[in-house]
Amino acid sequence: MWSNVGILARVLSRGTAWHVPVVVLSRGWKRVPGARRLRVAPRTCVPCRASQSTAGHNSFSVRSHTCGELRSTHVGEVVTLCGWIQYQRHGMFIILRDFSGLIQVLIPEDESRAKLKEFCDVPVESVVKVMGKVRRRPAGQENMNMPTGEIEVCAETVEVLNVCQKLPFEIKDFVKKTESLRMQYRYLDLRSSQMQYNLRLRSRLVMKMRDYLCNKHGFVDVETPTLFKRTPGGAKEFLVPSRDPGRFYSLPQSPQQFKQLLMVAGIDRYFQIARCYRDESSKPDRQPEFTQVDIEMSFVDQAGIQALIEGLVQHMWPDEKGSVSTPFPSMTYEEAMRDFGVDKPDTRFGMKLVNVSEVFDSTDVPFLRDTFRQPGGCVQAICVVNGAKHLKSKDLESIKQVALVHFQQEVSVVVVKTDGTWKSPLGKMLPESVKQSVHQMTMAQPGDLLILAAGQQDVVRPLLGKLRLYCAELLEEKGVALRDPTAFHFLWVVDFPLFLPKKEEPGELESAHHPFTAPHPEDADRLFSEPHKVRSQHFDLVLNGCEIGGGSVRIHNASVQKFVLEKVLKEDSSLLSHLLEALASGAPPHGGIALGLDRLLSIIVGASSIRDVIAFPKSFRGHDLMSGAPSFVSKEELRPYHIDVKWPAAVEGTEQ
Amino acid sequence: MWSNVGILARVLSRGTAWHVPVVVLSRGWKRVPGARRLRVAPRTCVPCRASQSTAGHNSFSVRSHTCGELRSTHVGEVVTLCGWIQYQRHGMFIILRDFSGLIQVLIPEDESRAKLKEFCDVPVESVVKVMGKVRRRPAGQENMNMPTGEIEVCAETVEVLNVCQKLPFEIKDFVKKTESLRMQYRYLDLRSSQMQYNLRLRSRLVMKMRDYLCNKHGFVDVETPTLFKRTPGGAKEFLVPSRDPGRFYSLPQSPQQFKQLLMVAGIDRYFQIARCYRDESSKPDRQPEFTQVDIEMSFVDQAGIQALIEGLVQHMWPDEKGSVSTPFPSMTYEEAMRDFGVDKPDTRFGMKLVNVSEVFDSTDVPFLRDTFRQPGGCVQAICVVNGAKHLKSKDLESIKQVALVHFQQEVSVVVVKTDGTWKSPLGKMLPESVKQSVHQMTMAQPGDLLILAAGQQDVVRPLLGKLRLYCAELLEEKGVALRDPTAFHFLWVVDFPLFLPKKEEPGELESAHHPFTAPHPEDADRLFSEPHKVRSQHFDLVLNGCEIGGGSVRIHNASVQKFVLEKVLKEDSSLLSHLLEALASGAPPHGGIALGLDRLLSIIVGASSIRDVIAFPKSFRGHDLMSGAPSFVSKEELRPYHIDVKWPAAVEGTEQ
Repeated sequence: MWSNVGILARVLSRGTAWHVPVVVLSRGWKRVPGARRLRVAPRTCVPCRASQSTAGHNSFSVRSHTCGELRSTHVGEVVTLCGWIQYQRHGMFIILRDFSGLIQVLIPEDESRAKLKEFCDVPVESVVKVMGKVRRRPAGQENMNMPTGEIEVCAETVEVLNVCQKLPFEIKDFVKKTESLRMQYRYLDLRSSQMQYNLRLRSRLVMKMRDYLCNKHGFVDVETPTLFKRTPGGAKEFLVPSRDPGRFYSLPQSPQQFKQLLMVAGIDRYFQIARCYRDESSKPDRQPEFTQVDIEMSFVDQAGIQALIEGLVQHMWPDEKGSVSTPFPSMTYEEAMRDFGVDKPDTRFGMKLVNVSEVFDSTDVPFLRDTFRQPGGCVQAICVVNGAKHLKSKDLESIKQVALVHFQQEVSVVVVKTDGTWKSPLGKMLPESVKQSVHQMTMAQPGDLLILAAGQQDVVRPLLGKLRLYCAELLEEKGVALRDPTAFHFLWVVDFPLFLPKKEEPGELESAHHPFTAPHPEDADRLFSEPHKVRSQHFDLVLNGCEIGGGSVRIHNASVQKFVLEKVLKEDSSLLSHLLEALASGAPPHGGIALGLDRLLSIIVGASSIRDVIAFPKSFRGHDLMSGAPSFVSKEELRPYHIDVKWPAAVEGTEQ
Repeated sequence: MWSNVGILARVLSRGTAWHVPVVVLSRGWKRVPGARRLRVAPRTCVPCRASQSTAGHNSFSVRSHTCGELRSTHVGEVVTLCGWIQYQRHGMFIILRDFSGLIQVLIPEDESRAKLKEFCDVPVESVVKVMGKVRRRPAGQENMNMPTGEIEVCAETVEVLNVCQKLPFEIKDFVKKTESLRMQYRYLDLRSSQMQYNLRLRSRLVMKMRDYLCNKHGFVDVETPTLFKRTPGGAKEFLVPSRDPGRFYSLPQSPQQFKQLLMVAGIDRYFQIARCYRDESSKPDRQPEFTQVDIEMSFVDQAGIQALIEGLVQHMWPDEKGSVSTPFPSMTYEEAMRDFGVDKPDTRFGMKLVNVSEVFDSTDVPFLRDTFRQPGGCVQAICVVNGAKHLKSKDLESIKQVALVHFQQEVSVVVVKTDGTWKSPLGKMLPESVKQSVHQMTMAQPGDLLILAAGQQDVVRPLLGKLRLYCAELLEEKGVALRDPTAFHFLWVVDFPLFLPKKEEPGELESAHHPFTAPHPEDADRLFSEPHKVRSQHFDLVLNGCEIGGGSVRIHNASVQKFVLEKVLKEDSSLLSHLLEALASGAPPHGGIALGLDRLLSIIVGASSIRDVIAFPKSFRGHDLMSGAPSFVSKEELRPYHIDVKWPAAVEGTEQ
């Protein structure tokens, strides 16, 4: 077939007793005609179908085995394999690859070898089908680095199913490619063993999560719409023009409203592996679409949701990554900020923040003393163990730079010398007793580095929190084994504030998470008097210093929800009238959580970017480098949507 | 708690020996403070948590049982239930409902009854928590229509968790609601037992499909992007403006390109329960987003894909709907058009088309004779068994009307009278022998109805195909049991044409399905000489006359794909350059299928619309009646996307 497009088809056969190699150099797909034309009659078996097993990776396929599954137990079996030519050796071996691994195929050495020459010219990455017998490799030729290295397949027929015409890069794990090239030719990049592992693991873990939620705990998988109404303040929501002039759908950032409505609807336990959208052009490394494991339950409290998630993580956790013990440790938001300077602490290492204010109370260094005497003022320190030993003065300078650039703040970087004295301008200003107290409180030893910062607590904490992580990276660059790359530290952070002062207008409040979060029961009465002091029933799940999930108990009372929207947040509650009406129609107490699936997976596989666990990610700038999306469309195509492009030159001025 | 918003909280307790009813009329959610504040320590057990079982519907919940699971085996157990008040009886019973069913709760009759009066005033659909002991109902008071009807729960405490303030309609299965009201208050509509069943069945069946594909056959669940590049001719794709001026993403109609690229990437077996988008404003009853079960395999042929799907349907099929036998019957497109006048025949009944041209060859009725003597001309008939008996002359008239309105064609509707003569103007024109031949060929009997149409075959077939279905509906309206409502007739339709003449320009060809479909192997050579005669390797899965899936073997050869795009379809192949490059980079032979999940589910549950198997569907006009989407957005919100609305008055003329 395909003869009109100039296909080179050749059948070479020979007559030795034990095998008849047939090499078909064809780009067509060999199919036996008329295999399926009879009505009702049992399906005609297609002769080229090597396997009709009822399960496994080879069911319904023309192959009998995958390349990687063959072992010495298969010796003597006639197998049919399909795969890609990984490479050729000595003009007599081809290494065939499929997703499961590699296998060596021997093109038998005999008088027909000359005829096989053409076959050996078929480029790597071409697709072939091989039929032949599995045999043990001759003694001494085994390759113990290869799972199939004890055996090889002695080809009887080889058929080229598709010739690989060109490749922008080789499909070898050791070949380095720029990320933009990987993105442009994603279909080749995905052939790498790492990307195959990542995508297959993702599928496997998601399946185990579904099993846990659906089969074990009675959750209902409900699909919610992605063409929805713009939410108040939904600046990060993509818009989708409709054919009704001026009306737009919006791609929601999460199914938050729908999951709560499903609880009002009596679904009781909902989950969805939900596609979410966020237009964050300002942020680097953004993915405009991402996936979250979205969960909501009725008649549950915070502890119940946390226990559910601990069980979920334990159930889905891959064996090859060790085990996860539960319950996960928990700390309050206040403790996290106090000890780690961040609400998502990386607890794989210490280097905690220490409040050393008290020892400076009695000193004569005015800027220190005055600072911490102001309301909210403090002096805090972190001790970088062996920091003086590993870090060069260039590194110490960069630490100061980070503080200056990100926080416009100076820090003192103190080298604790072998004799216990301080190498720092501060050393001369402070009496020995103060330095000793600081050593005691921070447990600093000779050879360590002390970083001291003075100022308002809400600046000093995040500043030292950032420097703590920065120093960890510096030390690891020097080869210090600070964080175990095989360790997974889960942590709950609880008791977040319900509201935060607005950045632009600190006199006003905004939701720390979202306006549907319920107040902490201990603080419930304060909601009406001192809302800024109210803690919430929000909780975050943190893994190795990354927030991988956030959950909360929701407000289920319509009047409380209305109070929060109108009185605290000063928002137009009519935009959420459908939700308020739902809460007034018999809403059960409910709560839930959303886990960031991409982030979780990337940590599990140790990827540096979530792009490595997404099949077709967008680039750093939100572009699809393979197809060129987003792309220009014609004025004609915009007409049905009643929109027109305002080109930048025209944006601020007149219409074009 | 919530005391500031005026909550009526009351605790009534009394001191009898065997129970202490506590009625808490509170809209707040009772929670024990400080339940979770300790770090690392084992989670503090919340006293109100009735069950900490490790699996099932009540794990992690404050209830111990669901309402519907209680049976006489639970007698004597103290249980905690949460649910909605379905109704109250005699001021002493409440019927509590959750997703699992109903249970009767007895408010014990004793001296405190007066105090309970207030509780009895709580409106239906309020949410309550009841703790009490299961007991056998007094003899004679059992309700055998209720699965829990042998028992009742004798309340010890009752807590009102949320008061239902208002309801636009009652949550009773027998209450009829308009569909727009159901859509506006979808969260109430979903409380009905039918909608609960539909959504839960959907979740269950999807889970079984995943189990079959992922666990049994090695498929990999891969999420593909929904923000993609507009495909050539993608008039039905929604556009999503990006922040790059003039550039748009597009919401794809299916993951077709991605699934093929995944095969090139060596994923080997892909599936996804994929959200798809289609902007079909012109069509009624559209859903702008819908879900398909999307499958692609490498190294497979058409028979393999069909066998996979038969196994899938069998595996997921719900027990309560009988069994499905495989393989499914199969017929060619030509057979389907010939016998049923449609490419998705409803094979639950006969009434097949019969070509009666030959008997009119010798007649004197010129318009009949001349018609079928033209190329493609024919006279065809369907016989409506007992049609004359059941259908009135008004019905016969409506049959003619359908033909006129939809096909601008006249048909002869012939009543075969008890004496075998024809009641029809045609009866007088035709000799008896012709009528006898028609009777023989159509197997018409006295009391039947014959519908005859003459004309071009490609008009007559769909015309009679439509009238066949119309007559079936008419007969069923009269109470004739034509189609078994519990029967499920699966059917493969195969050997579709690869190309069809364009409607606007019949001299040009367009893809019958999509340009990636491979030609039928028997017709492969014709592709280059007579493409209009080429059959494809496309196949449809039909259930009860609805197309529920379409699959094909794809073109895996780059030059064939290029030929089809450029030479046959006259399209700009550069818009698909990424796909052509991929095919040239070692694409394996591959094929796949997509099943319409919404449609399949709606047929299984017997719903009249796919809206009944979607949690939050759009209305007939594509609107979300609950939230009001799509909605207006401000000029300010459009600014980041560099677009402007062209209001209709301005569309054709100048900018506004």
